[in-house]
Amino acid sequence: MNKILRIDTGAEGGPQATVGSPGEYAGLGGRALTSTVVAREVPPLCHPLSAENKLVIAPGLLSGTSGAMSGRISIGAKSPLTGTIKESNAGGQPSQVLARLGYAAVILEGKPATDDLYKVVIDKEGVRIVRDNSLRMLPNYDLIEKMKSEHGEHIACISIGPAGEMKLGAASIACTDTELRPTRHAGRGGLGAVMGSKGIKVIVLDDSGMKTRQPKDPDKFHAANKKFVEGLRNHPVTGQGLPAYGTNVLTNIINEAGGYPTCNFRQGRFEKAHQISGETQAETETVRGGLATHGCHRGCVIRCSGIYNDKDGRYLTKQPEYETVWAHGGQCGISDLDAIAMLDFLDDNYGLDTIEMGVALGVAMEGGLLRFGDAEGAVNLVKEVGKGTPLGRILGSGAEITGKAFGVARIPVVKGQALPAYDPRAVQGIGVTYATSTMGADHTAGYAVATNILKVGGDVDPLKPEGQIELSRNLQIATAAVDSTGMCLFIAFAVLDQPDTFQALIDMINAFYGLQMTADDVVALGKQVLKTERDFNARAGFTAQHDRLPRFFKTEPVGPHNVTFSVPDEELDRVHDY
Amino acid sequence: MNKILRIDTGAEGGPQATVGSPGEYAGLGGRALTSTVVAREVPPLCHPLSAENKLVIAPGLLSGTSGAMSGRISIGAKSPLTGTIKESNAGGQPSQVLARLGYAAVILEGKPATDDLYKVVIDKEGVRIVRDNSLRMLPNYDLIEKMKSEHGEHIACISIGPAGEMKLGAASIACTDTELRPTRHAGRGGLGAVMGSKGIKVIVLDDSGMKTRQPKDPDKFHAANKKFVEGLRNHPVTGQGLPAYGTNVLTNIINEAGGYPTCNFRQGRFEKAHQISGETQAETETVRGGLATHGCHRGCVIRCSGIYNDKDGRYLTKQPEYETVWAHGGQCGISDLDAIAMLDFLDDNYGLDTIEMGVALGVAMEGGLLRFGDAEGAVNLVKEVGKGTPLGRILGSGAEITGKAFGVARIPVVKGQALPAYDPRAVQGIGVTYATSTMGADHTAGYAVATNILKVGGDVDPLKPEGQIELSRNLQIATAAVDSTGMCLFIAFAVLDQPDTFQALIDMINAFYGLQMTADDVVALGKQVLKTERDFNARAGFTAQHDRLPRFFKTEPVGPHNVTFSVPDEELDRVHDY
Repeated sequence: MNKILRIDTGAEGGPQATVGSPGEYAGLGGRALTSTVVAREVPPLCHPLSAENKLVIAPGLLSGTSGAMSGRISIGAKSPLTGTIKESNAGGQPSQVLARLGYAAVILEGKPATDDLYKVVIDKEGVRIVRDNSLRMLPNYDLIEKMKSEHGEHIACISIGPAGEMKLGAASIACTDTELRPTRHAGRGGLGAVMGSKGIKVIVLDDSGMKTRQPKDPDKFHAANKKFVEGLRNHPVTGQGLPAYGTNVLTNIINEAGGYPTCNFRQGRFEKAHQISGETQAETETVRGGLATHGCHRGCVIRCSGIYNDKDGRYLTKQPEYETVWAHGGQCGISDLDAIAMLDFLDDNYGLDTIEMGVALGVAMEGGLLRFGDAEGAVNLVKEVGKGTPLGRILGSGAEITGKAFGVARIPVVKGQALPAYDPRAVQGIGVTYATSTMGADHTAGYAVATNILKVGGDVDPLKPEGQIELSRNLQIATAAVDSTGMCLFIAFAVLDQPDTFQALIDMINAFYGLQMTADDVVALGKQVLKTERDFNARAGFTAQHDRLPRFFKTEPVGPHNVTFSVPDEELDRVHDY
Repeated sequence: MNKILRIDTGAEGGPQATVGSPGEYAGLGGRALTSTVVAREVPPLCHPLSAENKLVIAPGLLSGTSGAMSGRISIGAKSPLTGTIKESNAGGQPSQVLARLGYAAVILEGKPATDDLYKVVIDKEGVRIVRDNSLRMLPNYDLIEKMKSEHGEHIACISIGPAGEMKLGAASIACTDTELRPTRHAGRGGLGAVMGSKGIKVIVLDDSGMKTRQPKDPDKFHAANKKFVEGLRNHPVTGQGLPAYGTNVLTNIINEAGGYPTCNFRQGRFEKAHQISGETQAETETVRGGLATHGCHRGCVIRCSGIYNDKDGRYLTKQPEYETVWAHGGQCGISDLDAIAMLDFLDDNYGLDTIEMGVALGVAMEGGLLRFGDAEGAVNLVKEVGKGTPLGRILGSGAEITGKAFGVARIPVVKGQALPAYDPRAVQGIGVTYATSTMGADHTAGYAVATNILKVGGDVDPLKPEGQIELSRNLQIATAAVDSTGMCLFIAFAVLDQPDTFQALIDMINAFYGLQMTADDVVALGKQVLKTERDFNARAGFTAQHDRLPRFFKTEPVGPHNVTFSVPDEELDRVHDY
């Protein structure tokens, strides 16, 4: 990973590629790299769809190695959804492949003068950029089939669907998985719209002829990796819960805890939750010949993904994640797992963030567009996005815009981004993360649910304000560091609970790069990433007043606990004191 | 004006009225009153459509008197369009009538639990609130006809159309004129959506049996008023230009100056401007039996409004204002005056801000929804709002949302509100006002066009940054004061140029209230209003970074002068140093 590819999409005659050294960005990976580039090179007040914005795609520090769990790719830009800096990371194959091709980052810059669409092909021979307007408005699945027919099966793809081409706020960027399906998405923040604004429909990666990246100290690296894997296998979450039921293991847990937002955050418990739980889902998958346990990228040992077949045993979609099931399920009062799987497929196919779309549907239901629980109606609404109708453009612009179009006052967003699947009143630690994250409401920015509910890394009462600030702060710092390694965030369960596993991770990085990093250095890296991001946001006009939940979380108690969000504003303002 | 009417729209069993003394708000009128109430009583981070927001309707200090030009009514709230504090004022009859009924303000509070619609009737007997769902989705003209049939001709109405009921960001509040037509709108900032969220469709005012408000010193008051009127009649703008051609006298002037934004701010001059100029409009009106000179409220001596008939001589709409003609004309590349008049009628009828709608149409054109210059297409698009279709909801949500839905990067808004009819690159003083106003882009907040182009109140080169800060600052302060008197802002032309006319205005206030105010006191009042508004905005999260024009005004030169907006950011930050 000793080079950076820049593509000037606004160059005369079509996009121009330049490969250079990492220069000032050497030694950075993943989120640390994307956020540093965006913070240094993108004017904070630019329009996110303008030539001044840049889309930065970066494997993590350990991507492309034989290290387990190292397949996350970070994608960053100024977000069209939030207006903040944004990093969204995804699993699938592209991170490993791009890293083996030697690229620390691919940066899309400028803006084309025409509305032509382009395909970028990167392999051991170099970079080719091909104008191909036959790709216009292709959904992701069709697009990837076309790429397979043109480039063979030994590829990995990064692509946008119709939503990205339409430059909608909920547009995602799809990464192909081990079966070469477009199922792993950098979903949050509308980054697909930025890619669309650059006129790049798909990046095809082929690492044929390239080798796994080699550590400086192979023995130490392999020993550390082995210990790291053992740690993951020994932890109940990463060794048992996630492999067996996937992330959807959380439905019953969060519902039981009264933190399952139901019908646009009206209640904290959904009476039909068991119909869409991970247990039900895994059984359904197994009975229909799908897979309840499956890895989204090579080198995954947790294997929390799966394959969801329809009633006739044909592939419908990958196993929908907990937050997806919630967004289209509890948030919309829908308990039909097949409808939710179809919504997951449609979102992936059109290139939409499942969380943003599901929350937007729930907001539209509150606005009277259809009734809560109408599964067929929800499917039809998402299809509107694929058709590019005005209604589809409203919904595909996300929850906030949907709320404005339908006159809704209760819009569960922070900095314009929809709240994920945990009610901040019943899980107050995640509420702190939603409010104060550099990215808008994002559970992955500091997953306090782990400690509030799962009792991983300690035990902080989810219903009380005490201890939530410190919890969210420490998790946000740790996450920013993990997001820079290319490691799947789920390693955090084991790393938080098991000091040996944390040390094994550090040993892997040290052995690979010949470094002497300590745990303190990891913390320092996380803090530096957050500071860089917050500095960008401040220059973009974000203040402490934006680090707040919507007021209804403070004024409307939610059952069954009848609690409001009670962490004081002054406390929220202390989260980033470090 | 010794009482304030509060209506709790969230009360059990339907809205409840309470009449109380002005208390801490005594002595304030118009914008000073609306902004002070909003700043003190509305949580700055509340959702604008939530129960916590309040809609404050206040006549000016001199409204309801025999003083000339005193018919402006101020309406304030937290804006659904901008998120800032908002005051939008309108002409027509309600200000005089409400003031004669003795109300310093009507404040709509809370939020109804049902979606019932209500009519509020205020007369000398008191206040009656009537549930009337037969009013649902009535356009303003039909609504007012119904009110006339129910309450007679001696009324004045404040109402919303379908846009307000749908709670759209471009929804206006209509005030009836001297012919009892809903043609004078508090247009900017989506205040109609706030009224809609309170479930109040119309406020019917009847001052039968009430007297003109009496000054403390009638002789001095009448003498000052006489001098004031003489000053207005002697000034070329208020005595000649505005009466003869209305505000649309500006089309040729601004176009000649190269500051006429054309085709979504791509050019500064519109080759077909003469087809839609005030001269052409006045001639058309006269030939068709309309009126080129007309007052929008009793007591007006400038008489800048008019009556626009269709080709068959039938009333079509009131004389469209300059900014309306521009928004649907130059901004959209449309040169058909009848189409523009139809758009003006539709906007008034559905209850939409003409500026926001026209700019939204231009943005939609840039996004490829229809071609620039398509007058018939534009008419059909505005009709979508009246139908409540998804496309109508997008457009009716304003320029920024329209840009998001159609993936447009060049969106001419500040703080979410569309720029009016003067290109800030060619009229840099108004650019300073757009950027730094407490209300989002608003020409009326500090009309630097007067000095930049019309050479009223001095002469500051419109193309250069020098002197614009001081110019905009002084005008913003003066405007905040004038907006508190109930006086039409057009008095400013004479007041700025003629010290005697300014003194006559102060003498009127002093004579009416028995005060000893000086010019310095007026300036202090203006500063206090602005400080109150800026304090609210800061608590709502607005910073110096929000006091900026969209970046394309700094990066894209506009012809014919080929200039960019060149007032430095550091200078913008000095506007409110006082």
